[in-house]
Formats: sequence, structure tokens, C-alpha cells
Amino acid sequence: MTTSTDPTPFATLLSRCAPEWEAYRQHAFVRGLAAGTLPAEAFRRYLRQDYLFLVHFARAWGLAVYKSRTIAELRQGLDSLKAIVDLEMGLHVDYCARWGIDEAELEALPEARETMAYTRYVLDAGHRGDLLDLHVALAPCLVGYADIARWIETQAFTVRGPANPYEAWIAMYASEEFQAAAQAERDWLDARLSGQTAGRLDGLAATFRDAVRLEVDFWQMGLDGAGA
Amino acid sequence: MTTSTDPTPFATLLSRCAPEWEAYRQHAFVRGLAAGTLPAEAFRRYLRQDYLFLVHFARAWGLAVYKSRTIAELRQGLDSLKAIVDLEMGLHVDYCARWGIDEAELEALPEARETMAYTRYVLDAGHRGDLLDLHVALAPCLVGYADIARWIETQAFTVRGPANPYEAWIAMYASEEFQAAAQAERDWLDARLSGQTAGRLDGLAATFRDAVRLEVDFWQMGLDGAGA
Amino acid sequence: MTTSTDPTPFATLLSRCAPEWEAYRQHAFVRGLAAGTLPAEAFRRYLRQDYLFLVHFARAWGLAVYKSRTIAELRQGLDSLKAIVDLEMGLHVDYCARWGIDEAELEALPEARETMAYTRYVLDAGHRGDLLDLHVALAPCLVGYADIARWIETQAFTVRGPANPYEAWIAMYASEEFQAAAQAERDWLDARLSGQTAGRLDGLAATFRDAVRLEVDFWQMGLDGAGA
Amino acid sequence: MTTSTDPTPFATLLSRCAPEWEAYRQHAFVRGLAAGTLPAEAFRRYLRQDYLFLVHFARAWGLAVYKSRTIAELRQGLDSLKAIVDLEMGLHVDYCARWGIDEAELEALPEARETMAYTRYVLDAGHRGDLLDLHVALAPCLVGYADIARWIETQAFTVRGPANPYEAWIAMYASEEFQAAAQAERDWLDARLSGQTAGRLDGLAATFRDAVRLEVDFWQMGLDGAGA
Repeated sequence: MTTSTDPTPFATLLSRCAPEWEAYRQHAFVRGLAAGTLPAEAFRRYLRQDYLFLVHFARAWGLAVYKSRTIAELRQGLDSLKAIVDLEMGLHVDYCARWGIDEAELEALPEARETMAYTRYVLDAGHRGDLLDLHVALAPCLVGYADIARWIETQAFTVRGPANPYEAWIAMYASEEFQAAAQAERDWLDARLSGQTAGRLDGLAATFRDAVRLEVDFWQMGLDGAGA
Repeated sequence: MTTSTDPTPFATLLSRCAPEWEAYRQHAFVRGLAAGTLPAEAFRRYLRQDYLFLVHFARAWGLAVYKSRTIAELRQGLDSLKAIVDLEMGLHVDYCARWGIDEAELEALPEARETMAYTRYVLDAGHRGDLLDLHVALAPCLVGYADIARWIETQAFTVRGPANPYEAWIAMYASEEFQAAAQAERDWLDARLSGQTAGRLDGLAATFRDAVRLEVDFWQMGLDGAGA
Repeated sequence: MTTSTDPTPFATLLSRCAPEWEAYRQHAFVRGLAAGTLPAEAFRRYLRQDYLFLVHFARAWGLAVYKSRTIAELRQGLDSLKAIVDLEMGLHVDYCARWGIDEAELEALPEARETMAYTRYVLDAGHRGDLLDLHVALAPCLVGYADIARWIETQAFTVRGPANPYEAWIAMYASEEFQAAAQAERDWLDARLSGQTAGRLDGLAATFRDAVRLEVDFWQMGLDGAGA
Repeated sequence: MTTSTDPTPFATLLSRCAPEWEAYRQHAFVRGLAAGTLPAEAFRRYLRQDYLFLVHFARAWGLAVYKSRTIAELRQGLDSLKAIVDLEMGLHVDYCARWGIDEAELEALPEARETMAYTRYVLDAGHRGDLLDLHVALAPCLVGYADIARWIETQAFTVRGPANPYEAWIAMYASEEFQAAAQAERDWLDARLSGQTAGRLDGLAATFRDAVRLEVDFWQMGLDGAGA
């Protein structure tokens, strides 16, 4: 996150929530994915809830479209919606199938508390504030998954390739395409965060911190699923 | 609108606002389009504002995505967004170019009061109520344009083909594709309106009537543009 | 609006929309109120629609309560709501009664396009943006009426006292209490506008200008009522 | 909940979520309040978070004001806001003081996940749907606390009077005033639920069930506080 030059505004926001960010990035669930040692049942629990998460994530990008002021913002929201609804949901259904979760099961799933907590927090942050508040609340997801995939790639205990049952998950988020989307989001955030008042930045840092905490809970929910 | 069998719930809604609907469908602006006699300046004024309208129309469909409860509703909203942002906006820019309005002019346009009135009314109806309220407020646009195109096709004074400078406009909304989209919307509305309480239907009829009145104003704004 | 020292941020915002602000403040409707020459029918049309306006104005302050981040903001929104619902609506009903408009008529009123346009614009500005956007869109009303009352007080053609049938209207908005409420709003706006980026201020100025334009239309609607 | 005659629409909604409702009403936290055996630290954790809850509860009633369609609905929302901001928040601060929690501590509190989960769920249910969805999501709180106080009053293990450190809490929610407010809400819900389609009632029951589950978590959060 640090460079030889001044940190960007988003990097500064991140550094204000460093303990929460590390708790998120280095969570036991993530370590288990990296090492390939995560219990399958934990992953299945995560996968199922992540499908429900995607539905609300799509709703959040719908809200972003509503909140747009420019054609560029409209297109940004629409592109995210397409990525989620046209691409990720399908991949998710396929992925779930490979792990023995069929579509009928996905449709009938009860929503876990941790899924409700994070998704509704994001939606309320977006409604209460403006487009920037919404993006900041969403950042732990898009920017976070990209950062986590890069972190996994650099750990000594990480196992890549067919020996790791979670290779496909790691590869997706480490992919050039996903990394580029996350970088585009960071660039957008840097441009928008630049020049904001200290009071505004405090509020955004609080939103970001809460959102990261709720992402930590989401990993934990998966892990707890292994014992259920 | 009438058939030999019972009217559908949406047809009943329409029949409750028949004077407003006819004022919309048979407006002097529409007659001018049909006969090819509309002053070019009136059409240009309409075209320019319709571009701004599209931006808020896209925002309304973003709101519809946010308000969705099912994957089918998410996809319906996304499909409408794609149609507007990926297709209609581009067509509109091309169309404007043919009428001597360039993109830079479109970007810098001040928003007419009539554009603000209708678009913001729709957005508030959607926020205040649920997805059905939003669709009902949007119906005069999608369903209305399809109905108007069909009405134009049956009038004795209508001129079709190259002799009518507005042929492209008529052809677009009379096209099978647009008519099918409008019919799909009517079907969705019929399914949702069915079985609603009388009080709920009264509220929706009021929303629909107001939205139609504001569409009438939108035509009038175009017409007034000819005298400016 | 100008002082010997630097203008406040809100005064700067005002000065960016000076032509619209003067069109609002010095509108023929306002001049007619000041001189006591406004046709009674114009005033009645305004009064009726202003009642409907109050309903949506209350909704806007409900939205402000929703958008609050602090107890102070909650209380600010609640105080405005109380002022509107507990006080102004009652005064309005009484006032209307004195002008021969009874409450049953008020309840059954169709909403004028100008009422819809301004109120829905404010509500959308508030939903799309944050609490500051909402306040800026509301400012032409609260701050504007106070400014207009002060302007009336300094005009040579103004008639005060029983000779002016609109004395009660002028006195209400010129009252110390209303002026203090408007000043409190200006102070809040000055505090919030301070330190905002140039891009943010441009956006807020555009919102403010549009809202002022729609207030001008609201006066005009009253005036047009005299000829109806 | 049952009577010799047909159950009301709200009673039917309740009966569809009977297991969740009983888990809420008979939670160990509630039993501890009734018997006076709840660890003080559990109550303190609950009290602190309930203060934050009130802030978002007020925001929810602000949203209800925004969503109103009639003067009666405006007043209903405003009355609830006054009860929360003018009355309950003050009582809460006093109550907290008696339990050794000062106002400065309240202002600086981090929000527990369970507080975020329930409050944001309610706010999103209200935004996504209409005023009825919002009320249904809020019902476990207002109607639930009244029902819980009545349930406490009928249990053999309940201790009333100075021997129970939670007497004031029980007395407040068992009070005629609070019971009357809850009954008014039930009456409103019965009127609105009546005649709704089966599909609509299914959706509302799902919202109600989720909200009750999140209230159960809120009790559990208090209880977990005792061990922290």
C-alpha cells in the first residue's frame, strides 16, 4: 500500500483502518484458501451466502446508477451491473455446482445474519450519503478481494495449481482482468477523495472501517459453517 | 385498448385516465409528427430535452434494479438499462446529429422545467412507493410511445416514408422490437396489478394520471420551442 | 448579500445565481404582494398550491432526518418538521379559510405542475446526493422567503398595515422568528459549504440555480391563476 | 395472540413466524430481565447499543415521514419521531446514567454488528418497499417490546418491584401508554395488511421473520456482553 512517494488519498484511508484491514486480509479463512486447507464445508457456506451477497451487490450498483450525475458515472454503474449479473452470477452458479450446491438450493437459501449485516450497511451508507459514500462502503469488496488475492500470491504457505482445491477462486481474483477493475476503482476513489475536507474524510473512514469489519464477519461466517 | 373479453388490470387503469391519455396520444405534437408538418424547431427542442430525459430514465431503471426482489426483476432492470445506455443514447446522439445538434451541445444543455417535472416525479414515485409504483410512473413513456406509434399508423392524415421528415421516429416506436418491449411491460403490469386492493389501485391510478399529464407537458414544451 | 468583508460561502453560491435570484425576489407576484395590488385570485391559487407544497416540504424534512449522521442533525430535521406540520399547516388552513378556501377543498386539490416540479426536484436532489445537497435544494424556500420579506420591507412601493391585504403574509416572513430560522439555516450552510472542493461547489450551485428557477415558476403559477 | 374469532391479518403474520417470535419473546435475556437475574454487564451492553439503535430508529421514522401519502401518515411519523427524539433518547440518557454510563461514552460508542444488522435491514426494507414494508420491519421493535412486557407480567418467575433491578425497564414497556402505542400500530398494520395478495403477504412475512431474527441477535449481543 505504501510507495516511495506520498500515499494516495485511498491509501491514506486504508492506513487509518490498518488493523481492521489486516484482520480482513489475513483472516484464517483467507489463509485456509491460500494453503488449500480450508474445510470444504466452510467454503460451501461461504459460496452459498456469497450468491445472496451478489444479489444485494447488484442492487447497490443499481443504486449507484440512480445516484449518477454524469454519463460516465452511469456507464460505470452499468458496467459493474453487467459484470455481476451477466458474468459473476453465472460463474457463481457453475462454481457452486462443482461444489455440489445446485441452483434450486441457492434460490431457497435463508440469508445469514452476516450477509444481511454487510449488504444492508452498504445500501444504507449509499442512501444516506452520496455516490462517494456508496463506493467507499463497497470498496472492501472489490478493492479488498483484489488485495487479498495479491497477498495470497506472496505468502510462503500458499499452494497454487491443482493441489489446491481453491485454485480457481484465487486465480479469478488474481486475474489481470479483476486486478484492473479493482485498480480502476482505486483510481476513481483517489480522484474523488482528493481535496475533501477533514470532516468528510473522517466520516468516510468510519464507513470504510465498519464495512471492513462486516467483511471480516463474512469470512468468519464461512469458517463457522465448518463446525455446524 | 378494449377487447371482447374483460379489460386487463392495466387497461382498466388506462381507462380511468382516458381524457389525459387521449390528450397525450393525440397531442398536436404527435399529429405534427404523423403528418410530417411539425416545425423542425419544435422537434429539435424535443430531441434535445429527450436526451436529458434519457439520463434520468436510466437513473429510474437503476432505482428499479435497487428495488428488485428477484433475479428476474434484476435482469428486467438491467435489460432496460442496457437498452437505454448502450442503445438509445447512441441512437439519440446520431439522430440529434442528423438534425444538426452535436454532442457538445447536448452535454451543455440546460434542463427544461418540463423535463425536470416529469423525470423527478417518476423518481420520487419510485422512492416513495415500491417497484410497482415506479413501473406505473414509467409506463406512460414505454407503453405510451408504443401506443402512440400504433395510433399514428391508423390515422388518415399520417404520412409514412421519405415524405415525412419524422419517418425514422415513427418507425422506431412502431418497430416490432419496441412494440414487443412495451407489450412485455404491459404483461408485467397486468400480473402485478392483478388482485391489488381498491385503495392501492386508486393510488396507482393517481400516479399514472399525474405522469401522463407531465408527458403531455413534455410534448407541449417541444411545440412551444417552435415559437421561441 | 454583500458585506465589507469576504462573502460567506453561501453568499458566494447566491452570487453565482444572481440573475435567477433577482428574478425570484423581484417577481411580479412579489411586487404585487408588496404593493397590495396582487389579484386575489392569484393569491388564492398560490395559497392552495402552497398547501400541497407544505406536504412535500415535510416529506423533504423527513428525508433530512433519515439522512442525519448526528443527534444535532436529527434535532434540526425534527424541529423543521414540527414547524411545518404542527404550526405552518395549521396557519395555512386558517389563512386559506380567511381567503375563502376550506379544508375539504385543500384535501381534494389537484397538484399543479409547478408544485410537482419544484417539490420532486428537491426530493430527488436529496436522494441522489447527501444532506448538504438536500439543504441547498431547500434553501430557496426558507432562506429565499426571508430574503424576499426583507426586500419587500425596503421597497418604496411597499404598503404595510391594514391597507395591504397581504400584510399578514409579509409580517409572517418578516417576523423575527422566521428571520432567525432562515439565518440559522444560512449559518448551517456556511459551515457545510466551507472547504468544499470546486467541483462540489459547481454541482451545488447547479442544484441551487435549478431550485431557484423552479421557485420562480411557482410565483408565475400563482400569477397565471388570476387569468384562469 | 389468538382469540375466539378469526385472527387479525397481523396475528396471522405473527403466527407464520411463531418459532422466531417465541425465540425473541422468551429469550434468556428477557427471562433474566423478568427474574431480575440478568448480569448487570449484559444489561449495560444492551443499553449502550440500544442508544445507537434509537438514532437509526429515528432515521427510520424520518423515512416513514418521507414515504407518507397523507397528512395522517405524516403525523403518525412525526409523532413517532417526537416520542423517540424528544422523550426516549432523554430517558435513555438518564437510564444509562443510573447504570453508570455517561453521555460522553454514549456518543463515542462503536456500533455493534448486531445493531448495524437490524437497523440497516429495517432501513433497506423501507427503501426497497413502501411504507407498509417499513412498518412491518419496525413492528418487532414496537409491537414486540409491548408483547414481551405483557409476557413477562404473566410468568411465574417474574419479580416485580424494587427487588428487580430491571423493574423500571419492565414498567416502561408494560405501561398503558406504551401498550396503547403498540396497539395503535397493530391496528394500523391490520388495516393495511387486510386484502393484500398472497404474494405480497409472503414477502411481508419474510421481512417480518428476518427482522425478528435480528432482534433475537440483539438480545444475544447483550447476553454475550456479560462474558466479555
